[in-house]
Amino acid sequence: MATLCRPSVSVPEHVITMEETLELARSRHADHPQLALALRLIENTGVKTRHIVQPIEETLKHPGFEDRNKLYEHEAKARVPAVIQRALDDAELLTTDIDVIIYVSCTGFMMPSLTAWLINEMDFDSTTRQLPIAQLGCAAGGAAINRAHDFCTAYPNANALIVACEFCSLCYQPTDLGVGSLLSNGLFGDGIAAAVVRGRGGRGVKLERNGSYLIPKTEDWIAYDVRATGFHFLLDKRVPTTMEPLAPALKDLAGNHGWDATDLDFYIIHAGGPRILDDLSKFLEVEPNAFRFSRSTLTEYGNIASAVVLDALRRLFDEGGPEERARGLLAGFGPGITAEMTVGRWTDGDGGGR
Amino acid sequence: MATLCRPSVSVPEHVITMEETLELARSRHADHPQLALALRLIENTGVKTRHIVQPIEETLKHPGFEDRNKLYEHEAKARVPAVIQRALDDAELLTTDIDVIIYVSCTGFMMPSLTAWLINEMDFDSTTRQLPIAQLGCAAGGAAINRAHDFCTAYPNANALIVACEFCSLCYQPTDLGVGSLLSNGLFGDGIAAAVVRGRGGRGVKLERNGSYLIPKTEDWIAYDVRATGFHFLLDKRVPTTMEPLAPALKDLAGNHGWDATDLDFYIIHAGGPRILDDLSKFLEVEPNAFRFSRSTLTEYGNIASAVVLDALRRLFDEGGPEERARGLLAGFGPGITAEMTVGRWTDGDGGGR
Repeated sequence: MATLCRPSVSVPEHVITMEETLELARSRHADHPQLALALRLIENTGVKTRHIVQPIEETLKHPGFEDRNKLYEHEAKARVPAVIQRALDDAELLTTDIDVIIYVSCTGFMMPSLTAWLINEMDFDSTTRQLPIAQLGCAAGGAAINRAHDFCTAYPNANALIVACEFCSLCYQPTDLGVGSLLSNGLFGDGIAAAVVRGRGGRGVKLERNGSYLIPKTEDWIAYDVRATGFHFLLDKRVPTTMEPLAPALKDLAGNHGWDATDLDFYIIHAGGPRILDDLSKFLEVEPNAFRFSRSTLTEYGNIASAVVLDALRRLFDEGGPEERARGLLAGFGPGITAEMTVGRWTDGDGGGR
Repeated sequence: MATLCRPSVSVPEHVITMEETLELARSRHADHPQLALALRLIENTGVKTRHIVQPIEETLKHPGFEDRNKLYEHEAKARVPAVIQRALDDAELLTTDIDVIIYVSCTGFMMPSLTAWLINEMDFDSTTRQLPIAQLGCAAGGAAINRAHDFCTAYPNANALIVACEFCSLCYQPTDLGVGSLLSNGLFGDGIAAAVVRGRGGRGVKLERNGSYLIPKTEDWIAYDVRATGFHFLLDKRVPTTMEPLAPALKDLAGNHGWDATDLDFYIIHAGGPRILDDLSKFLEVEPNAFRFSRSTLTEYGNIASAVVLDALRRLFDEGGPEERARGLLAGFGPGITAEMTVGRWTDGDGGGR
């Protein structure tokens, strides 16, 4: 049975507060006809601080797609290995124990993916499978967990390493002036997360059943416009309404497992924005406090894309973890509109060891 | 046991011959100091014809990354569904029988991936998993087969749909003037392939064991330089020498299965170029004719990236297929340098039916 072990998370050293974000919006978009709305939307996110890979003055410049992408590669190489090493240490495994690396990131593009460099740099075995995913956006954290679960179901003695590396600040586009863009400029943050899914042993969430759901005819609600200036994030104003159609999908997954999604012991949910959490709380009929891990991620780091679910899960571990066999639900949401969902039980393991 | 069914393949209607390619190279690069070498390398590819999504006059223009990528999306939407439908028909399945779509493509970038559009357009179930892979290049065809195999191992009643959509002509970069670029301009072609991996039943290759191998310290031998003008393909001159270190990896995979890689009944190999096939024939000690399917793909279509292995496999089916229980090896090669390999046995199935 595959167990999702404690995620390791790192956010960069440069911090921007909500007040600084609001002040920037006021000063840079003083003439914007919808400035008041944009400020209100940013305030409503509840994002108090975000961490970014460069000082804000550098972030606001656009040196071109090429330099941005080179910076992505440079920062990823500088920051990712340490996060992976901590995840391996927490799972009590070595690089050579890993059978597949699932690397998800939608904020930079490399071919070959960082996985090839990581295998060379960190001495993973040459036979390690590489599964890089760049096109699932914020849902990719959930997708990585689910594909790792599938892999360990196929090969019960295998171990999977998940890495989510998101530098959303490198997708800032100064010429995008729609309200959705101004909101996004105040919502997204940078972060790196890694976690091991152990085929045998380990402490964490025993993954029992996973599933995907695509809300029909919403494929253009969250999208990248790919241009010479890089990836331009398009956010439809209907996105915050998506929890109403997604809640039944979460209930179905839990129901197929003989569980009631409204009555579980823990919830790890993608914190795309505050309304996502508020609405899901309403439509799943669970108390808002059940989403405290996700809300803390959102408040302290902003929406760090595919890394959100791993950071929220890390907070569950840091709280001490629930009771043995506590039942929980994890869900990532992203473009498609796609949900990647899983249900599982907490296990304190067998005292660790390999 | 997962069975890889007959691939469906489609190449575009615009054709360019080797003589036309050579003439273009001569006229456009008359002053190039290494023109003679480039012409010789192109001639040595043995690529007689390639198929491209636009007339050659349009292909040679560069309208910018944005327009190129929009064209990728337009052409993919226009061409992919029919190829998928034929693959489903050949596997005697409906869209609603598919549990995961693995879509591989390194020649255009969309988020969400085409999978979201396909689910909506072709009425796949909303719960279909999406696995888009953009960063494994030519190895992605093999990777798609292997991840489909893993998925069906985890869920023995599941069915996976593989799609490889490569419009290499949309990555032509007129300002890239290295010999490797001139060679690439004469080597790569466009093509779309799709195939179903059935968890139960089906006629084709019963997938028995798969593996990956990364040649250490070669991550920059095949790479994209990502720029405002799009993806610039970098091809190191050492790439043709990679079969010497990869042959032992193929032998190890077969050996772990109790088979001898030098003595199998069929071989489906990525035809990256002629030397890849010649060298692998030498280092695996198999007669060149064993690679006739791959060589036909290379001759008639050029290197169609991740779609090569699926087209070569289609030719095995079209030849009538080998004997029941014939043992075979499939391998994709690409950036990393990565090999994605699998061994399996031919099955004529149980007479079809679902």
